[in-house]
Amino acid sequence: MTDTDPLSLLNSTLERCIPITRAMGITADSYDGNRLRLSAPASPNLNDKLTTFAGSSYSIAALSGWSLLYVKLVERGIDADIAVYKGEINYIKPAKGDFFAICATPEPEFIEDFFGTLATRKKAKITLNVVVYDAESPVVDFTGKYSVRYLGSEQLL
Amino acid sequence: MTDTDPLSLLNSTLERCIPITRAMGITADSYDGNRLRLSAPASPNLNDKLTTFAGSSYSIAALSGWSLLYVKLVERGIDADIAVYKGEINYIKPAKGDFFAICATPEPEFIEDFFGTLATRKKAKITLNVVVYDAESPVVDFTGKYSVRYLGSEQLL
Repeated sequence: MTDTDPLSLLNSTLERCIPITRAMGITADSYDGNRLRLSAPASPNLNDKLTTFAGSSYSIAALSGWSLLYVKLVERGIDADIAVYKGEINYIKPAKGDFFAICATPEPEFIEDFFGTLATRKKAKITLNVVVYDAESPVVDFTGKYSVRYLGSEQLL
Repeated sequence: MTDTDPLSLLNSTLERCIPITRAMGITADSYDGNRLRLSAPASPNLNDKLTTFAGSSYSIAALSGWSLLYVKLVERGIDADIAVYKGEINYIKPAKGDFFAICATPEPEFIEDFFGTLATRKKAKITLNVVVYDAESPVVDFTGKYSVRYLGSEQLL
Protein backbone atom coordinates (compact mmCIF):
# COMPACT_ATOMS: atom_id res chain seq x y z
CA MET A 1 0.00 0.00 0.00
CA THR A 2 1.44 3.36 -0.97
CA ASP A 3 0.51 6.79 0.33
CA THR A 4 -1.42 7.47 -2.84
CA ASP A 5 -3.53 4.34 -3.03
CA PRO A 6 -7.27 5.06 -2.62
CA LEU A 7 -7.51 3.62 0.90
CA SER A 8 -4.60 5.72 2.21
CA LEU A 9 -6.02 8.83 0.57
CA LEU A 10 -9.40 8.05 2.12
CA ASN A 11 -7.93 7.70 5.61
CA SER A 12 -5.99 10.96 5.22
CA THR A 13 -9.15 12.74 4.07
CA LEU A 14 -11.27 11.38 6.93
CA GLU A 15 -8.61 12.36 9.46
CA ARG A 16 -7.98 15.81 8.01
CA CYS A 17 -11.46 16.86 6.91
CA ILE A 18 -13.99 15.11 9.19
CA PRO A 19 -12.45 15.50 12.66
CA ILE A 20 -15.25 13.77 14.60
CA THR A 21 -14.27 10.49 12.86
CA ARG A 22 -10.99 10.66 14.81
CA ALA A 23 -12.91 10.98 18.10
CA MET A 24 -15.00 7.96 17.04
CA GLY A 25 -11.83 6.05 16.08
CA ILE A 26 -13.20 5.29 12.60
CA THR A 27 -10.64 3.86 10.16
CA ALA A 28 -11.00 2.52 6.63
CA ASP A 29 -9.22 -0.81 6.91
CA SER A 30 -9.86 -2.66 3.67
CA TYR A 31 -10.99 -2.26 0.10
CA ASP A 32 -10.75 -5.14 -2.36
CA GLY A 33 -12.08 -3.27 -5.39
CA ASN A 34 -15.62 -4.26 -4.45
CA ARG A 35 -16.24 -4.13 -0.68
CA LEU A 36 -15.05 -1.29 1.48
CA ARG A 37 -14.80 -1.76 5.24
CA LEU A 38 -14.62 0.86 8.00
CA SER A 39 -14.11 -0.14 11.62
CA ALA A 40 -14.32 1.52 15.03
CA PRO A 41 -13.58 0.59 18.64
CA ALA A 42 -16.37 0.26 21.21
CA SER A 43 -15.02 2.58 23.88
CA PRO A 44 -15.49 6.13 22.48
CA ASN A 45 -18.87 5.14 21.00
CA LEU A 46 -20.61 3.68 24.04
CA ASN A 47 -24.10 4.68 25.15
CA ASP A 48 -25.89 4.51 28.50
CA LYS A 49 -26.57 0.78 27.96
CA LEU A 50 -22.86 0.07 27.22
CA THR A 51 -23.71 -0.84 23.63
CA THR A 52 -22.98 1.34 20.58
CA PHE A 53 -24.48 4.84 20.45
CA ALA A 54 -27.06 4.98 17.63
CA GLY A 55 -25.39 8.10 16.21
CA SER A 56 -22.04 6.32 15.92
CA SER A 57 -23.61 3.35 14.09
CA TYR A 58 -25.30 5.78 11.73
CA SER A 59 -22.07 7.73 11.23
CA ILE A 60 -19.97 4.70 10.30
CA ALA A 61 -22.74 3.46 7.97
CA ALA A 62 -23.24 6.78 6.17
CA LEU A 63 -19.46 7.25 5.95
CA SER A 64 -19.04 3.79 4.42
CA GLY A 65 -21.21 4.74 1.46
CA TRP A 66 -19.45 8.10 1.20
CA SER A 67 -16.09 6.30 1.34
CA LEU A 68 -16.97 3.75 -1.33
CA LEU A 69 -17.83 6.60 -3.70
CA TYR A 70 -14.63 8.41 -2.68
CA VAL A 71 -12.40 5.46 -3.65
CA LYS A 72 -14.34 4.81 -6.87
CA LEU A 73 -13.83 8.45 -7.87
CA VAL A 74 -10.12 8.38 -6.90
CA GLU A 75 -9.65 5.24 -9.01
CA ARG A 76 -10.95 7.17 -12.04
CA GLY A 77 -8.97 10.31 -11.24
CA ILE A 78 -12.12 12.34 -10.61
CA ASP A 79 -12.36 15.12 -8.05
CA ALA A 80 -15.92 15.55 -6.74
CA ASP A 81 -18.05 16.58 -3.78
CA ILE A 82 -19.94 13.65 -2.27
CA ALA A 83 -22.88 14.16 0.11
CA VAL A 84 -25.56 11.94 1.61
CA TYR A 85 -28.98 13.62 1.21
CA LYS A 86 -31.25 10.93 2.66
CA GLY A 87 -30.62 8.10 5.10
CA GLU A 88 -32.73 5.25 6.46
CA ILE A 89 -31.40 3.12 9.26
CA ASN A 90 -32.77 0.05 11.01
CA TYR A 91 -31.20 -1.06 14.26
CA ILE A 92 -31.47 -4.86 14.18
CA LYS A 93 -29.97 -5.40 17.62
CA PRO A 94 -27.61 -3.57 20.02
CA ALA A 95 -23.94 -3.64 18.95
CA LYS A 96 -21.64 -5.05 21.61
CA GLY A 97 -17.93 -4.26 21.48
CA ASP A 98 -15.98 -3.12 18.44
CA PHE A 99 -17.93 -2.77 15.21
CA PHE A 100 -17.38 -2.45 11.48
CA ALA A 101 -19.38 -1.46 8.40
CA ILE A 102 -19.27 -2.90 4.90
CA CYS A 103 -20.46 -1.18 1.76
CA ALA A 104 -20.36 -3.33 -1.38
CA THR A 105 -20.15 -1.83 -4.86
CA PRO A 106 -23.53 -1.87 -6.62
CA GLU A 107 -23.97 -4.00 -9.74
CA PRO A 108 -21.85 -2.84 -12.72
CA GLU A 109 -24.83 -1.39 -14.64
CA PHE A 110 -25.67 0.95 -11.73
CA ILE A 111 -22.07 2.11 -11.39
CA GLU A 112 -21.72 2.67 -15.15
CA ASP A 113 -25.01 4.59 -15.23
CA PHE A 114 -23.79 6.70 -12.32
CA PHE A 115 -20.46 7.55 -13.97
CA GLY A 116 -22.18 8.13 -17.33
CA THR A 117 -24.56 10.65 -15.73
CA LEU A 118 -21.69 12.31 -13.85
CA ALA A 119 -19.76 12.70 -17.12
CA THR A 120 -22.64 14.24 -19.04
CA ARG A 121 -24.47 16.24 -16.35
CA LYS A 122 -21.57 16.91 -13.94
CA LYS A 123 -23.74 15.59 -11.13
CA ALA A 124 -25.30 12.24 -10.35
CA LYS A 125 -27.16 10.38 -7.61
CA ILE A 126 -26.78 6.84 -6.36
CA THR A 127 -28.31 4.65 -3.64
CA LEU A 128 -26.01 2.50 -1.50
CA ASN A 129 -26.64 -0.17 1.11
CA VAL A 130 -24.44 -0.69 4.14
CA VAL A 131 -24.49 -3.31 6.89
CA VAL A 132 -22.87 -2.71 10.27
CA TYR A 133 -21.67 -5.72 12.28
CA ASP A 134 -20.35 -6.36 15.74
CA ALA A 135 -18.15 -9.42 16.39
CA GLU A 136 -21.19 -11.70 16.36
CA SER A 137 -23.72 -10.59 13.77
CA PRO A 138 -25.27 -7.77 11.71
CA VAL A 139 -26.53 -4.96 13.94
CA VAL A 140 -27.60 -2.24 11.50
CA ASP A 141 -29.05 -2.02 7.98
CA PHE A 142 -28.56 1.33 6.29
CA THR A 143 -29.65 2.74 2.94
CA GLY A 144 -28.23 6.08 1.88
CA LYS A 145 -28.94 8.27 -1.11
CA TYR A 146 -25.87 10.18 -2.22
CA SER A 147 -25.36 13.07 -4.61
CA VAL A 148 -22.04 13.67 -6.31
CA ARG A 149 -21.00 16.93 -7.94
CA TYR A 150 -18.14 16.84 -10.42
CA LEU A 151 -15.31 19.30 -9.71
CA GLY A 152 -12.58 18.18 -12.14
CA SER A 153 -10.47 15.25 -13.25
CA GLU A 154 -6.97 14.27 -14.22
CA GLN A 155 -8.27 13.40 -17.68
CA LEU A 156 -11.29 14.53 -19.67
CA LEU A 157 -14.41 12.61 -18.68
CA MET B 1 -32.48 25.35 37.74
CA THR B 2 -31.30 22.83 40.32
CA ASP B 3 -29.00 19.84 39.86
CA THR B 4 -32.00 17.54 39.90
CA ASP B 5 -34.21 19.25 37.35
CA PRO B 6 -34.77 17.11 34.25
CA LEU B 7 -32.52 19.22 31.99
CA SER B 8 -29.57 19.06 34.42
CA LEU B 9 -30.05 15.31 34.85
CA LEU B 10 -30.17 14.94 31.07
CA ASN B 11 -26.91 16.86 30.59
CA SER B 12 -25.20 14.82 33.32
CA THR B 13 -26.40 11.58 31.68
CA LEU B 14 -25.26 12.62 28.20
CA GLU B 15 -21.86 13.65 29.53
CA ARG B 16 -21.36 10.57 31.69
CA CYS B 17 -22.94 7.85 29.56
CA ILE B 18 -22.60 8.88 25.90
CA PRO B 19 -19.02 10.19 25.70
CA ILE B 20 -19.02 10.99 21.97
CA THR B 21 -21.61 13.73 22.69
CA ARG B 22 -18.84 15.54 24.58
CA ALA B 23 -16.56 15.36 21.53
CA MET B 24 -19.43 16.74 19.43
CA GLY B 25 -20.07 19.50 22.00
CA ILE B 26 -23.76 18.58 22.24
CA THR B 27 -25.62 20.24 25.12
CA ALA B 28 -29.28 20.24 26.10
CA ASP B 29 -29.94 23.94 26.52
CA SER B 30 -33.68 24.34 26.98
CA TYR B 31 -36.87 22.50 27.79
CA ASP B 32 -40.12 24.40 28.32
CA GLY B 33 -42.29 21.38 29.11
CA ASN B 34 -43.06 20.94 25.42
CA ARG B 35 -40.02 21.62 23.22
CA LEU B 36 -36.59 20.29 24.01
CA ARG B 37 -33.55 21.87 22.34
CA LEU B 38 -30.03 20.47 21.96
CA SER B 39 -27.25 22.54 20.42
CA ALA B 40 -23.72 21.98 19.12
CA PRO B 41 -20.85 24.11 17.83
CA ALA B 42 -19.72 23.88 14.20
CA SER B 43 -16.02 23.24 14.74
CA PRO B 44 -15.81 19.59 15.99
CA ASN B 45 -18.55 18.58 13.55
CA LEU B 46 -17.19 19.91 10.27
CA ASN B 47 -16.93 17.83 7.12
CA ASP B 48 -14.76 18.12 4.01
CA LYS B 49 -17.06 20.86 2.63
CA LEU B 50 -16.81 22.88 5.89
CA THR B 51 -20.50 22.30 6.59
CA THR B 52 -21.89 19.90 9.23
CA PHE B 53 -20.94 16.21 9.01
CA ALA B 54 -24.07 14.17 8.18
CA GLY B 55 -23.37 11.84 11.11
CA SER B 56 -23.33 14.75 13.57
CA SER B 57 -26.66 16.10 12.25
CA TYR B 58 -28.13 12.61 12.60
CA SER B 59 -26.67 12.23 16.10
CA ILE B 60 -28.11 15.48 17.46
CA ALA B 61 -31.49 14.68 15.85
CA ALA B 62 -31.71 11.12 17.19
CA LEU B 63 -30.49 12.31 20.61
CA SER B 64 -33.16 15.02 20.72
CA GLY B 65 -35.91 12.44 20.50
CA TRP B 66 -34.13 10.27 23.05
CA SER B 67 -33.72 13.31 25.32
CA LEU B 68 -37.37 14.36 25.09
CA LEU B 69 -38.38 10.88 26.27
CA TYR B 70 -35.72 11.03 28.99
CA VAL B 71 -37.11 14.25 30.49
CA LYS B 72 -40.73 13.05 30.17
CA LEU B 73 -39.82 9.88 32.07
CA VAL B 74 -37.85 11.81 34.71
CA GLU B 75 -40.85 14.13 35.23
CA ARG B 76 -42.96 11.07 36.07
CA GLY B 77 -40.28 9.48 38.25
CA ILE B 78 -39.88 6.52 35.88
CA ASP B 79 -36.57 4.75 35.25
CA ALA B 80 -36.44 3.20 31.78
CA ASP B 81 -34.16 2.22 28.89
CA ILE B 82 -34.78 4.32 25.79
CA ALA B 83 -33.49 3.27 22.36
CA VAL B 84 -34.05 4.42 18.79
CA TYR B 85 -34.74 1.39 16.57
CA LYS B 86 -35.41 3.10 13.24
CA GLY B 87 -34.38 6.49 11.84
CA GLU B 88 -35.17 8.38 8.66
CA ILE B 89 -33.32 11.55 7.87
CA ASN B 90 -33.61 14.08 5.05
CA TYR B 91 -30.86 16.61 4.56
CA ILE B 92 -32.66 19.71 3.32
CA LYS B 93 -29.52 21.79 2.84
CA PRO B 94 -25.97 21.92 4.23
CA ALA B 95 -25.73 23.30 7.78
CA LYS B 96 -23.38 26.24 8.09
CA GLY B 97 -21.94 27.16 11.50
CA ASP B 98 -23.40 26.17 14.85
CA PHE B 99 -26.58 24.13 14.80
CA PHE B 100 -29.40 23.04 17.09
CA ALA B 101 -32.21 20.48 17.12
CA ILE B 102 -35.74 20.79 18.42
CA CYS B 103 -38.02 17.92 19.36
CA ALA B 104 -41.55 18.92 20.27
CA THR B 105 -43.78 16.77 22.48
CA PRO B 106 -46.37 14.83 20.45
CA GLU B 107 -50.06 15.61 20.93
CA PRO B 108 -51.38 14.70 24.42
CA GLU B 109 -53.31 11.62 23.20
CA PHE B 110 -50.11 10.05 21.81
CA ILE B 111 -48.17 10.73 25.01
CA GLU B 112 -50.97 9.37 27.18
CA ASP B 113 -51.26 6.25 24.99
CA PHE B 114 -47.50 5.78 25.26
CA PHE B 115 -47.44 6.04 29.06
CA GLY B 116 -50.55 3.87 29.33
CA THR B 117 -48.90 1.12 27.30
CA LEU B 118 -45.67 1.48 29.30
CA ALA B 119 -47.62 1.06 32.55
CA THR B 120 -49.50 -2.05 31.44
CA ARG B 121 -46.93 -3.80 29.22
CA LYS B 122 -43.69 -2.44 30.73
CA LYS B 123 -42.60 -1.46 27.24
CA ALA B 124 -43.90 0.96 24.63
CA LYS B 125 -43.00 2.50 21.28
CA ILE B 126 -43.37 6.05 20.03
CA THR B 127 -42.52 8.01 16.87
CA LEU B 128 -40.92 11.44 17.23
CA ASN B 129 -40.09 14.17 14.74
CA VAL B 130 -37.07 16.43 15.04
CA VAL B 131 -35.91 19.41 12.99
CA VAL B 132 -32.28 20.54 12.97
CA TYR B 133 -31.53 24.21 12.20
CA ASP B 134 -28.47 26.29 11.51
CA ALA B 135 -28.55 30.04 12.22
CA GLU B 136 -30.55 30.67 9.04
CA SER B 137 -33.05 27.88 8.42
CA PRO B 138 -34.05 24.23 8.86
CA VAL B 139 -31.34 21.89 7.55
CA VAL B 140 -32.55 18.42 8.54
CA ASP B 141 -35.87 16.61 9.01
CA PHE B 142 -35.69 13.49 11.14
CA THR B 143 -38.24 10.88 12.16
CA GLY B 144 -37.22 8.36 14.79
CA LYS B 145 -39.02 5.34 16.18
CA TYR B 146 -38.14 4.72 19.81
CA SER B 147 -38.72 1.82 22.14
CA VAL B 148 -38.84 2.27 25.89
CA ARG B 149 -38.46 -0.51 28.44
CA TYR B 150 -39.67 0.13 31.97
CA LEU B 151 -37.11 -0.55 34.71
CA GLY B 152 -38.76 0.90 37.81
CA SER B 153 -40.30 4.04 39.28
CA GLU B 154 -40.41 6.13 42.40
CA GLN B 155 -44.10 5.33 42.71
CA LEU B 156 -46.24 2.48 41.41
CA LEU B 157 -47.25 3.03 37.80
